[in-house]
Amino acid sequence: MTWGNATGGTPKPVRVALLGCGTVGTEVVRLLREQATDLAARVGAPVELTGIGVRRPNKHRGQVPAELLTTDAAALVDSDVDVVVEVIGGIEPARTLLVTALRAGKSVVTANKALLAEHGAELFAAADASGADLYFEAAVAGAIPLLRPLRESLAGDRITRVMGIVNGTTNYILSAMDSTGAGYAETLEEASRLGYAEADPTADVDGYDAASKAAILASLAFHTRVTAADVHREGIASVTAADIAAAKAIDRTVKLLAICERVTHADGRESVSARVHPAMIPRSHPLAGVGGAFNAVFVEADAAGQLMFYGRGAGGAPTASAVLGDLVAAARNRVVAGRGPRESAYADLPAQPMGQVSTRYHISLDVADRAGVLAQVAAVFAEHDVSIAAVRQEGRVNDASLVIVTHGASDAALRSTVDKIGGLPVVREVVSVMRVEGEQP
Amino acid sequence: MTWGNATGGTPKPVRVALLGCGTVGTEVVRLLREQATDLAARVGAPVELTGIGVRRPNKHRGQVPAELLTTDAAALVDSDVDVVVEVIGGIEPARTLLVTALRAGKSVVTANKALLAEHGAELFAAADASGADLYFEAAVAGAIPLLRPLRESLAGDRITRVMGIVNGTTNYILSAMDSTGAGYAETLEEASRLGYAEADPTADVDGYDAASKAAILASLAFHTRVTAADVHREGIASVTAADIAAAKAIDRTVKLLAICERVTHADGRESVSARVHPAMIPRSHPLAGVGGAFNAVFVEADAAGQLMFYGRGAGGAPTASAVLGDLVAAARNRVVAGRGPRESAYADLPAQPMGQVSTRYHISLDVADRAGVLAQVAAVFAEHDVSIAAVRQEGRVNDASLVIVTHGASDAALRSTVDKIGGLPVVREVVSVMRVEGEQP
Repeated sequence: MTWGNATGGTPKPVRVALLGCGTVGTEVVRLLREQATDLAARVGAPVELTGIGVRRPNKHRGQVPAELLTTDAAALVDSDVDVVVEVIGGIEPARTLLVTALRAGKSVVTANKALLAEHGAELFAAADASGADLYFEAAVAGAIPLLRPLRESLAGDRITRVMGIVNGTTNYILSAMDSTGAGYAETLEEASRLGYAEADPTADVDGYDAASKAAILASLAFHTRVTAADVHREGIASVTAADIAAAKAIDRTVKLLAICERVTHADGRESVSARVHPAMIPRSHPLAGVGGAFNAVFVEADAAGQLMFYGRGAGGAPTASAVLGDLVAAARNRVVAGRGPRESAYADLPAQPMGQVSTRYHISLDVADRAGVLAQVAAVFAEHDVSIAAVRQEGRVNDASLVIVTHGASDAALRSTVDKIGGLPVVREVVSVMRVEGEQP
Repeated sequence: MTWGNATGGTPKPVRVALLGCGTVGTEVVRLLREQATDLAARVGAPVELTGIGVRRPNKHRGQVPAELLTTDAAALVDSDVDVVVEVIGGIEPARTLLVTALRAGKSVVTANKALLAEHGAELFAAADASGADLYFEAAVAGAIPLLRPLRESLAGDRITRVMGIVNGTTNYILSAMDSTGAGYAETLEEASRLGYAEADPTADVDGYDAASKAAILASLAFHTRVTAADVHREGIASVTAADIAAAKAIDRTVKLLAICERVTHADGRESVSARVHPAMIPRSHPLAGVGGAFNAVFVEADAAGQLMFYGRGAGGAPTASAVLGDLVAAARNRVVAGRGPRESAYADLPAQPMGQVSTRYHISLDVADRAGVLAQVAAVFAEHDVSIAAVRQEGRVNDASLVIVTHGASDAALRSTVDKIGGLPVVREVVSVMRVEGEQP
């Protein structure tokens, strides 16, 4: 359903249903009220909030107009609204509600990264069937305008790589470990106490949140359906104080990175790799200075070169800013009978299995301090066809520290190499194994 | 003219005329050819280049298909095309050609900052009259997706400030002066020799280029028509080696900044200030590290907080990337009968005269080394109601160096203060006067 804006008459308001009223939802309601005049001018019609679907209305009284609250989200979606804004999070009931809305021709604005990363194709299909819009800028990197540039500004370019810090909790923990030298468990506890980590931090620390975002970024960047299941995922729970110290010793810091790459094979075929894992990056790298609640994402494209986007990655107001930007776009499309961008998955590139992805490793070993150790270790690398970029050996009282940085090699080869090295009698301990990113291979 | 995409049939191509074939135009032609399949998939129809308007066709033979070249740009615009891409630059003939195209319902993609900054209203009016699209991402900050985020992603937020480095030539010169300690004239000569400055560098070094960009940014950020004439403009020709040294002495560096601010007055009224001038910024500020050909722009908004956009600000391929992104949007709108964003100037805020804009000054003086000098100088500040934030006095053999950083004060008051201080008998020389930005006031 679309309607024109009769010349001279008062334009019909664009009617909006809000699903969810937590930190982000409350901010959306506030901005809709405070910016009403501006929003109407930008949309070309008043934006009217007709209802807010919540589980426990009593919880929200005083914060938002009580008469808008309803527990019947399905009825709200089914009512006479033009745009449904979803900030509930999680798969159900969000999925059913949004598919219903889109099928009925209602445009959807959502901040739901998990839903997009798992059921994006279903949502896009429902949107396409009815001609409704689906916007989700707030699902990745909070307030940072990132998805619209990827979907639209770079639509005439060939994106080759997206790499960024997209989870604030893990970034806070790793930054704190870097500055205090403390271990992971201790730092997580402190982060929870200070409110930087959720009571159940699994989604953040195990990389699920970042993996959902990587799936969304890879889908948009490479015009290919990538789901969270396609993303190789390693969290930060296994990052030790020794890893951080090893990074510091070579002027690097450890960050949890989401990396999406277009891989071009020797025969010209292309595939897509999407992965989330901790990695050492040089302290001089712009991502190294991104602290706490901030997110930053690098995008590399053939013609544009290197771009960086930086800003607040989470929080009620920043996320609400992204939601409102999408809401203005969806509402304006209603007024001018326009249409936002659709799913673009025409490239349909295959996923590159992680074992075949080329990465670099930094390996720190405690070895016996005697002749021939380096030769034995180096032989294992050679055997697995892994080329060594740099070696540093330092004698200590009874043993020696041996640090090796490899050139790019398949992840499978690197893993086998490390496994075999760990079994060498001359190797006392594999102190730290970590990927290296952010420098020329 | 718009047409649907008949199900099952081959969609009609979107016909594109290119005006101008310099560095950017050549790259546009190359990308249109190399990315043809991808562009068709993203647009939903093939994109067909029907002609290239140039002044001297012989100059371009070998680089672009000769049969597309024409000297009759007016006839090309008048022919059966859907989108006109303009990369000629300058006011005429670009202005007449684009107004003609827009009035005839042809969408326009342009990289022409001077034209937008001076005649944006006329172009938008022509676009509105026919329902055509007007896109101009490439006009500011080259490849960096900046205008689309401002126009669309932040459409639900209230932008308060935009500050950035938007001119590569001046950034190169100031960076070089900072690292070598050389003077302006000498560094400009070197920059010209190396191809970093044009034969006639006026548009860059006198700040005209940056002022056009500031006008465009302020218009979009504040929903108000701001033209280049509204922008206070100071170039870098008066930046001396002494200014750079003074900045270094307090761990700052000098950058040419474009600054657009929403000014809220005591009575709640708002106005818009747009200015371009050199300023000292702390070396720890993210803009301090932006070197050479790169541009970076900070955006501050009420809900989103602080955002930064970084990337290549000029060059054929980066600018062509931005042009192609716009072309895909304009072409897709043709295919789906959609419509891009229109001019948004509803806020219509008044321009703040530069004399009333609050800025901070860094003033470095050579003064007589005797009792009472500081008192005399401080009295002049007090007399003009300019508050001093920091003072540093250092005795030398026969005189002393006195450095003063002010709090924010009206530009008029600061200028009068400096004029009067320069006339004090105890002041031997006003060594450097420069604005200070990038720190809390």
